[in-house]
Amino acid sequence: DFNFIYLSFLPSKMSSSTSTKYVFHFEEIAEVKQKVGNVWDNVKSLLGGKGAGLSQMSSLGLPVPSGFTITTESCIYYLKNGKWPSSLWNEITAALKVVEKKTGKTFGGESNPLFVSCRSGAKFSMPGMMDTVLNIGLNDKTSKVLAAKTSERFVQDAYRRLIAGFGSIVLGIPSEHFEDLLKKYKKSNNYKIDTEMKADDWAELVKQFKEVIVKEKKMEFPQDPLEQLRLSISAVFSSWNSKRAIAYRKEVKPPIPDDLGTACNIVSMVFGNMGDTSGTGVAFTRNPSTGEKKFFGEFLANAQGEDVVAGIRKGVPVVEMGNLLPDAYKQLCKVAETLEAHFKNMQDIEFTVEDKKLYMLQTRDGKRTARAQVKIAIDMVEEGLINKEDAIKRVSPDDVNVLLLPQLDPVALDNAKKNGSFLGKGVNASPGGAVGEVCFDADEAVLRKKSGKAVVLIRPFTKPEDVHGFFASKGVITGEGGATSHAAVVARQFGLPCIAGVTTFVIDLKKKIFTATLDEKDGKESKQIIVKDGDYISMDATNGNVYLGALTTRDANFADEKELQTILGWGDEICLRAKRENGLKGLQVWANADYGKDATRARNFGAQGIGLCRTEHMFFEKERIPIVQKMIMSKTREERQIHLNKLLPFQKKDFYELFVAMSGLPVIVRFLDPPLHEFLPDHLVALENVQKLEAAEKTDTAEYKEAKLLLATIEDLHESNPMIGLRGCRVSVIYPQITDMQATALFEAACEAKNKGFDPHPEIMIPLVSHVNELKTLKPIVEEAAKKVFTKLKMSIPYLYGTMVETPRAALTAGDVANTAQFFSFGTNDLTQMTFGIARDDAERKFLMQYVEQGILPSNPFQTLDQEGVGQLIKWAVANGRQTRASLDSKPMSIGICGEVGGDPVTIDFCHRNMLSYVSCSPFRVPVARLACAHAALAAEPKKEVLKRA
Amino acid sequence: DFNFIYLSFLPSKMSSSTSTKYVFHFEEIAEVKQKVGNVWDNVKSLLGGKGAGLSQMSSLGLPVPSGFTITTESCIYYLKNGKWPSSLWNEITAALKVVEKKTGKTFGGESNPLFVSCRSGAKFSMPGMMDTVLNIGLNDKTSKVLAAKTSERFVQDAYRRLIAGFGSIVLGIPSEHFEDLLKKYKKSNNYKIDTEMKADDWAELVKQFKEVIVKEKKMEFPQDPLEQLRLSISAVFSSWNSKRAIAYRKEVKPPIPDDLGTACNIVSMVFGNMGDTSGTGVAFTRNPSTGEKKFFGEFLANAQGEDVVAGIRKGVPVVEMGNLLPDAYKQLCKVAETLEAHFKNMQDIEFTVEDKKLYMLQTRDGKRTARAQVKIAIDMVEEGLINKEDAIKRVSPDDVNVLLLPQLDPVALDNAKKNGSFLGKGVNASPGGAVGEVCFDADEAVLRKKSGKAVVLIRPFTKPEDVHGFFASKGVITGEGGATSHAAVVARQFGLPCIAGVTTFVIDLKKKIFTATLDEKDGKESKQIIVKDGDYISMDATNGNVYLGALTTRDANFADEKELQTILGWGDEICLRAKRENGLKGLQVWANADYGKDATRARNFGAQGIGLCRTEHMFFEKERIPIVQKMIMSKTREERQIHLNKLLPFQKKDFYELFVAMSGLPVIVRFLDPPLHEFLPDHLVALENVQKLEAAEKTDTAEYKEAKLLLATIEDLHESNPMIGLRGCRVSVIYPQITDMQATALFEAACEAKNKGFDPHPEIMIPLVSHVNELKTLKPIVEEAAKKVFTKLKMSIPYLYGTMVETPRAALTAGDVANTAQFFSFGTNDLTQMTFGIARDDAERKFLMQYVEQGILPSNPFQTLDQEGVGQLIKWAVANGRQTRASLDSKPMSIGICGEVGGDPVTIDFCHRNMLSYVSCSPFRVPVARLACAHAALAAEPKKEVLKRA
Ligand SMILES: [Mg+2]
Ligand SMILES: [Mg+2]
Repeated sequence: DFNFIYLSFLPSKMSSSTSTKYVFHFEEIAEVKQKVGNVWDNVKSLLGGKGAGLSQMSSLGLPVPSGFTITTESCIYYLKNGKWPSSLWNEITAALKVVEKKTGKTFGGESNPLFVSCRSGAKFSMPGMMDTVLNIGLNDKTSKVLAAKTSERFVQDAYRRLIAGFGSIVLGIPSEHFEDLLKKYKKSNNYKIDTEMKADDWAELVKQFKEVIVKEKKMEFPQDPLEQLRLSISAVFSSWNSKRAIAYRKEVKPPIPDDLGTACNIVSMVFGNMGDTSGTGVAFTRNPSTGEKKFFGEFLANAQGEDVVAGIRKGVPVVEMGNLLPDAYKQLCKVAETLEAHFKNMQDIEFTVEDKKLYMLQTRDGKRTARAQVKIAIDMVEEGLINKEDAIKRVSPDDVNVLLLPQLDPVALDNAKKNGSFLGKGVNASPGGAVGEVCFDADEAVLRKKSGKAVVLIRPFTKPEDVHGFFASKGVITGEGGATSHAAVVARQFGLPCIAGVTTFVIDLKKKIFTATLDEKDGKESKQIIVKDGDYISMDATNGNVYLGALTTRDANFADEKELQTILGWGDEICLRAKRENGLKGLQVWANADYGKDATRARNFGAQGIGLCRTEHMFFEKERIPIVQKMIMSKTREERQIHLNKLLPFQKKDFYELFVAMSGLPVIVRFLDPPLHEFLPDHLVALENVQKLEAAEKTDTAEYKEAKLLLATIEDLHESNPMIGLRGCRVSVIYPQITDMQATALFEAACEAKNKGFDPHPEIMIPLVSHVNELKTLKPIVEEAAKKVFTKLKMSIPYLYGTMVETPRAALTAGDVANTAQFFSFGTNDLTQMTFGIARDDAERKFLMQYVEQGILPSNPFQTLDQEGVGQLIKWAVANGRQTRASLDSKPMSIGICGEVGGDPVTIDFCHRNMLSYVSCSPFRVPVARLACAHAALAAEPKKEVLKRA
Repeated sequence: DFNFIYLSFLPSKMSSSTSTKYVFHFEEIAEVKQKVGNVWDNVKSLLGGKGAGLSQMSSLGLPVPSGFTITTESCIYYLKNGKWPSSLWNEITAALKVVEKKTGKTFGGESNPLFVSCRSGAKFSMPGMMDTVLNIGLNDKTSKVLAAKTSERFVQDAYRRLIAGFGSIVLGIPSEHFEDLLKKYKKSNNYKIDTEMKADDWAELVKQFKEVIVKEKKMEFPQDPLEQLRLSISAVFSSWNSKRAIAYRKEVKPPIPDDLGTACNIVSMVFGNMGDTSGTGVAFTRNPSTGEKKFFGEFLANAQGEDVVAGIRKGVPVVEMGNLLPDAYKQLCKVAETLEAHFKNMQDIEFTVEDKKLYMLQTRDGKRTARAQVKIAIDMVEEGLINKEDAIKRVSPDDVNVLLLPQLDPVALDNAKKNGSFLGKGVNASPGGAVGEVCFDADEAVLRKKSGKAVVLIRPFTKPEDVHGFFASKGVITGEGGATSHAAVVARQFGLPCIAGVTTFVIDLKKKIFTATLDEKDGKESKQIIVKDGDYISMDATNGNVYLGALTTRDANFADEKELQTILGWGDEICLRAKRENGLKGLQVWANADYGKDATRARNFGAQGIGLCRTEHMFFEKERIPIVQKMIMSKTREERQIHLNKLLPFQKKDFYELFVAMSGLPVIVRFLDPPLHEFLPDHLVALENVQKLEAAEKTDTAEYKEAKLLLATIEDLHESNPMIGLRGCRVSVIYPQITDMQATALFEAACEAKNKGFDPHPEIMIPLVSHVNELKTLKPIVEEAAKKVFTKLKMSIPYLYGTMVETPRAALTAGDVANTAQFFSFGTNDLTQMTFGIARDDAERKFLMQYVEQGILPSNPFQTLDQEGVGQLIKWAVANGRQTRASLDSKPMSIGICGEVGGDPVTIDFCHRNMLSYVSCSPFRVPVARLACAHAALAAEPKKEVLKRA
């Protein structure tokens, strides 16, 4: 388990305090690597994430402020024994000497005083760890020296922050003591924002903050810099066992072991606010929104890091730093290149220039948009930094999804940010953009949707009873909950944009308003905006931001997404070269499409076949339903044939369009599937119709006779459980004429397409088979129809005759079924319903959600394949089906999946590992599926030695 | 396959005609055995069934008329080469010489002429084979000699039969030619029945029949006996390939190979009609109805065999033969003993006494009633003839079934036979007795049943639409069809008496009458009886006989069936000694019972536990339904608890009675299973109720408020597929209070039973589990309830917590489920529904019947286990469940079955072979199940060398 990996790598002699080295300068990374067996993961275990990063940068020859890391071993020792390892303080003071020599400054010195920051740094970042204490070394004397180099106002501000930070973080005094004094002071001086405070204002607060420490802790704020440092380091070690840190480590998946401990980084302070030849900045080595290979960030001359983060003054785009500090900027560009070459990824960096000298403070892989992810991956391949496999692994299925979902228009988004219509931020539970009228009630949402309005549903939280509101809304916002709340789970399932847990919204369901509180930022103090029922709001759910007003949205167009197509193309190559059992390559992606136009769109998305064409859709259309009803009510074969013949041309036309759209590619057509009563009016309607005629004494009319016959037919066909009743092949076995009509229409359409120069590949799929004899009974009917058509048209088209495997029994007897079925397709919607004994429509709005929330089910089995249960049936059927067909066909039997899970990446990985030939999903999911297939192929490739990538 | 067994045993030199011996005298059986490797089955292949029987009797020293068998080899040779083997005729004539010496008669001789019969005899009897030709050797001269010894009338009658038989059977002249002449002659002489014909009448017909042969075949009836014999033998060989024989051989299961051929037996005629010291008889060595060890049959002095069969004269009970022919009778008794000792079974024998000398003509195992089967089996064990295992194997599950079904009272049956109220006979498709008004229409039957009438449904044939009529009738009769017709299949399934294919009934649905035609028998000529709608008729469906009028019926009473209980007792012993994997003995039989009284009856039938107590039955009772409805409609936990507490005492009482009835034995209680809406009124009813109140403007009353709430609850709980919706454990997971109440009631009941000196063994079974987490979620609730009750009552009862395996997923993940479930019980009703994806209630009255009739399904999967599909899930679950529990329990995990198939013998054999612990079925099926368990145990025992039993 997880612990094992950690402890096994740490060399055994870690714990003994005598000869252990607890402090490493950033330049000593080679020694660290050698100590931990040259494994990068162990370096991070010893130095922590930040420490490893800083020493890594220094080993790359990058300008890093001098400093050193106190290892996690010291922390573990301190927590176990309640005191520092005896040799630690001397190691620290010795290290300080080295820093003093390198910086030419002395810690606590009065001429050129050295200031340091003290920062925690565990292997994994986690909430509840001690924040950074900056400007350790400031006291009454050294502050004067620094003021001379920077400014009185800056130093007094830094000094009050040190005292407050030290008081709350190190000494444990509740921060309200200090914050209240500041608020009171600003109020008494009628200041709105911090920037109005002058030097002596801050000086006054320094005094007041000192008094708080005396009052609360019966001690003076330590003027001795070494004392300040020593107490800060202990505070870092203790924060590893803070309540929030312990809770987080247990909750996160996979859980983080408690015996890792945290490192502590002591870094010499560099000051970006020493005048115009200094400054500070944060930047991405490439544009995190577009992925363009251009620096993207902010540089603030003569300013410290916190000013940028706090947004007190607006910086200039980092590229303009060249005009101000050309040398430093040139060096920064070089650093960016080195970092990218080393980490082989776009970096998010923090730096400071002190009197023209550049210092790198932190680097990590930068967060980016889906579009940037794709572009950067491709560029880095073309730049030779990474190979195609790495590029594909970087792009996630969600990235592809986001690129194809309607989004808020980027320009409109920027303007909204600028003109302050930002309302609040929450968890980006389900991606996409949405705009609509605010609505506080599910039923209300349904009504407004009916009257054509676009609605955004906002609730404190949602319950199963609200789900019908989801379907009526463009998006959902909740005040509480997170990524696994009811709203999040349901929204993700139906691809609905959702922002959960916007804690700054106070939602009043009675008054039907919500109040958004904006805290002080970008130079504007906190204010409250009230949004009423019916006001327009916009959701950027991909990033979790809510804006006032109706922003324009943009529908994705796959044809324009050139980079995405490149990545997916590379993915297809990987699938083509993948080698699986008995000559199978990687998975193909087919699509579910009922009409020519759907097939064309699917083909454009890259689909290599149609895995499911539902033929009954054609029966449900307005002008065809009456004919279908007469066919069902026919008393004799002859009468039934008349109506079937009328339906034939419609079916033929639809099939023809499919064969044209998919010329050269396989098209699987599923014959009639639904229960017959679905084509008939609702029982109550038919009953009222008859009663109306009887009330009007029109009982001797033909109309009455028909109404009575319709009612009788409905009552006769009534089933208490239609989903597992007279449907699918059972209807065709009882009324073989239906199969004859559909087969005739299909073969005529195929011949017509062939004559028009297209290349049709029809495959006939029989639905809901539970015994091979059902297939055997219908096969001659299909063969008869084929013979009839081919002889009439003096031509013939090769076709396959196979089955949907969607009952557990078909899977269990697959070896037998495969004697007659030339191909299988797993109908996982029905197969899952029958394996669980759960009817999806009833359950998904009721107990199934509660099952997922209560963790009874790990996930919704209709969204991602139930590998433990349904998965076993699939494995069984694949093995036995292929075994039977091995002696009958030259190529391995074509076996695919066409239930909704066909587009789910986790299911696709399962399908690859279990030798399915293809997955079939809705056209819009084809791109995501193609990527997932590539991921599956890569995951299955034998592991090259990738451990030492550091 | 079948052929292999035959041919492999026939010695290779069979086919060459030179040295092959084709004719064997009955006395030469030793030589035959030696020729075929001393295997009885091969003797029958060579000599055919009858030939082997006759030579077997002769080898036992029994008096058999002298004769010989022409082997099947000759027939095969004739059919292959179109002519006899060259040596055959000489062998036959030589054999005749031997017979002449032994009988002292000469074939064709004029003083003491020998007459012979020529009879086909294949290994398996089949329709379409040549019937017997008697009195070969009769011609104008020899007839006079025989007349002197017997009577002119007999000889002329025999001579006309020979000529007619020879003409139609041997020469192929349509029998109507002869029959029409007889009818015309009788009409012209105003004779009603054959017995009125005198000697010269028959002489006249002899003349007319001779003329037919001349007219039709341009040849005289051969006066030369050898010619008569030669042509008869060829006719026997050719009849092997008659259309009906070939068809039968293909249809029967398993099919009979065409290359077996038939043998031909030439037996010297013996005449029972040579005066008072002669006679003929048919008899059973034991009473075929009661099984009493007493001769049962008929002896007719001075008469030929055909007279007895034709019923022209009434014989005397065979036991009275002693008064007429004491020596012959004593010899006959000795023969009976020898036969029974040899064949180890009751025999059905035919014999003739010619002038005080006894001749045995045929012997075979006698057909008998269920009661006789049981008694004879037991007696023969006590007589040391057979062992207990043989006795048990003889009794079939149907026998047990028949003994427990209501039957027509035997006395009333005898009287009905005597007073001529017999109407007709058909196929005994489904056993039992039934009495009721004749009814010609299914809907009519339903109405009459509602008005309390007993009805017998009679139709030419039945269709699925008539099935509701079945449920309304005491029995069903059809004019057409047989054992596999729609009526037969449905009747057998619902245990409804059914007589199919009474061809002598002409059913007129318009006039609502049926006409029964009785042909000439027992001295009465054919007549027609018309039966009108509403007349009373009685059905002895066990034997397929219909009687006019209402006979009394007798309900079976297991307590009185002493012999049956003995046999079942022996069966239980066999199960107890059976050894299966990991220490399992044979199958136990438990019962499904919901109330104490059912459990008591089941225990009396021999049940060793309750495999299923459905707790919801208690909720459906009139005074409890309103409380249940209020519980379902409760809005808060507190409100729901109030109503649950009211239900608790009812549940407790029912559980208590069960524990008392089953003291010392396990009782499995299944917690709430059905969907909640089944406890609520029908939607339309609730709707009308609300509309009524609204129409009466009573909308501000409490009653209206309740009606509205009830309607809203019904609509909310509505599901389109309730069978796989919110039911079983899903309801308990959503409303845990229900499980708490049921568990509390169960533990309180168990404690009370314990205190009253009984020994309760409760096992709690959770229904419809599809994921182990559902079991884990409910387990603490049960444990809590147990702790609460046990602490309150300061005592504790051991109990098991297990699950119903009735979803495919529960079976597939059985290894996981068994971590929490201590026992399994397969709910095959639901498991079969979900594995096929077929809802039983809808399908069984519709397409499922058509599937069985069309042979798409070999049988109704709800009647006998679908071993190919559901069977695999069961095997999987048993293996994985046992494997998981092996490390948790000391004894192998208890795994049973409680679906309806639990009482089906074929399923029981499957359960034995696949290591189930017990089967559970309805109380009435327990005896049948006990027998089937014994059969399964015996079938599984390693085969002792049983081949040479002959
Ligand atoms: Mg389906
Ligand atoms: Mg069940």
